Amino acid sequence: MNSVKAFAPATVANVACGFDIFGFAIKEPGDVVELRRCDEPGIVIADIIGDEGRLPRSAEKNSVTGVMLHMLKHLGIKDFGCEVVLHKNMPLGSGMGSSAASAVAGVMAINEMLGQPFTRQELLPFAMEGERIASGSAHADNVGPSLLGGFVVIRSYNPLDIFTIPVPDDLYCTLVHPDIEINTKDARFILKNEVSLKNTIAQMGNVAGLVAGLMKSDYDLISRSMVDVIIEPVRSILIPDFKEVKQAALSNGALGCSISGSGPSMFALSRGLENANNAATAMRARFAQAGIESAIHVSAINQGGAMILTD
Amino acid sequence: MNSVKAFAPATVANVACGFDIFGFAIKEPGDVVELRRCDEPGIVIADIIGDEGRLPRSAEKNSVTGVMLHMLKHLGIKDFGCEVVLHKNMPLGSGMGSSAASAVAGVMAINEMLGQPFTRQELLPFAMEGERIASGSAHADNVGPSLLGGFVVIRSYNPLDIFTIPVPDDLYCTLVHPDIEINTKDARFILKNEVSLKNTIAQMGNVAGLVAGLMKSDYDLISRSMVDVIIEPVRSILIPDFKEVKQAALSNGALGCSISGSGPSMFALSRGLENANNAATAMRARFAQAGIESAIHVSAINQGGAMILTD
Repeated sequence: MNSVKAFAPATVANVACGFDIFGFAIKEPGDVVELRRCDEPGIVIADIIGDEGRLPRSAEKNSVTGVMLHMLKHLGIKDFGCEVVLHKNMPLGSGMGSSAASAVAGVMAINEMLGQPFTRQELLPFAMEGERIASGSAHADNVGPSLLGGFVVIRSYNPLDIFTIPVPDDLYCTLVHPDIEINTKDARFILKNEVSLKNTIAQMGNVAGLVAGLMKSDYDLISRSMVDVIIEPVRSILIPDFKEVKQAALSNGALGCSISGSGPSMFALSRGLENANNAATAMRARFAQAGIESAIHVSAINQGGAMILTD
Repeated sequence: MNSVKAFAPATVANVACGFDIFGFAIKEPGDVVELRRCDEPGIVIADIIGDEGRLPRSAEKNSVTGVMLHMLKHLGIKDFGCEVVLHKNMPLGSGMGSSAASAVAGVMAINEMLGQPFTRQELLPFAMEGERIASGSAHADNVGPSLLGGFVVIRSYNPLDIFTIPVPDDLYCTLVHPDIEINTKDARFILKNEVSLKNTIAQMGNVAGLVAGLMKSDYDLISRSMVDVIIEPVRSILIPDFKEVKQAALSNGALGCSISGSGPSMFALSRGLENANNAATAMRARFAQAGIESAIHVSAINQGGAMILTD
């Protein structure tokens, strides 16, 4: 195989109550990694399109090529050479799982080019390594759903225990990216290391409610369970007019609304495409009122995850 | 109706990872409340059998009759009179939901005698009031499953939001009550008010895993999710040889094992009756090794909850 293109979708991590344990993929946007075989061994970044020159161009430091080198080393392959073109189709530091999408597209592409030495599930630890290179910690709540698709639960990190749960057919996501930037490391730094037992119990109740609501297609239960008493109250202060934008979503048909990943993107879940579109319009309008431009994406839950693109 | 008998089953609250939010009912044992209509208004405790004289005999102070008086007041009924006989079929302070079973049997019985002014779901706040009289706080993780049956999730206490989730047909509970006593208030007192964010996330993962495992009939996932990193490490110190008894259950076919409610009873969940019986034998033998007698109860999950008994 002389060339491969892989697509990996944007993702919403945390999903209100599920800090570090829940994530789901959306259909668009997604990053694309293009590989072209070379005779010369080694991995070279030929181009990165759409990052405004911000990502590292050195193969070791860039998370996409970093995981590829990691995988080649793991397989003991020394004579492989390729050129990489990364198409960044979402902003960096947006809370849309940007670094995860790139890493996942990277591992999917090289795995395909190498003749699929790994199953999709086996690619997960490699993609997580990309998260470590990009942000310092190997989280799975973006790479998991970007790779596997669907609504993903990470029961445990050590050992890694990850599974998907079914979601109702008529569930739609609204993702709104305001034109401001939050550093993932900062967003993690402001969190408190201790949680009251009372809030832990409340959050556990909502986690149980959201899983059961999704699996039962009980939209009311989903709505009542999309409550985050631990993370949202702290991180939302980094997003201008967060409460008002959230209220705009809820007043316009959304079941629930919270921060996507570590922000500043916000997401809402709605029953039906019309509600999801109405929430999008209302959220964008409310950000505009605060003088902030925003990009909106409305889609069903992406059940397939990353994929190889054929020309 | 001149006489009514109601049965309410024992329950397992917390269920490993679900402190204050999970509970399920078992088939036996259960308390029975017998009411006999009198001409004289007022509620009189005629007898309490099986409590070794430890429960209050005054109608206001006893939680069973206390909730009945509360219900009559709520309905504005002043001319009602009855005699109450309470058959305590489980030990007090056992972690088997003893006070909850009595309160639930009480509200079921009086509701029946009054011609069912309340639905079963509506009886819940009254039964919770019985828990407040008995233990000082109106928890629902025992009264919920004792009243409603099945595996109960309490998503929120304020407002009260409670629902049941399906469990696999072949799931059996082993409940072992060692002959030692723990005061519920003490068991709550030793808990820490703060939880690390790390442990909160781990517990949330297990809560999500247990709900999904039960709903998917995924016994392996149920097993992996029956992990409590917050409460069990603290409360288990009150139970002699807890670790060894737990290991005996796990080595003899149980999917998981933890403290029932605030203890000292311990429960295990197993796939199939044979495993549940083997776990029971092993747990009792291990307690015996520590010089502690214990009573064992093996049953499927009780799907019906409390019921009116007909002679």
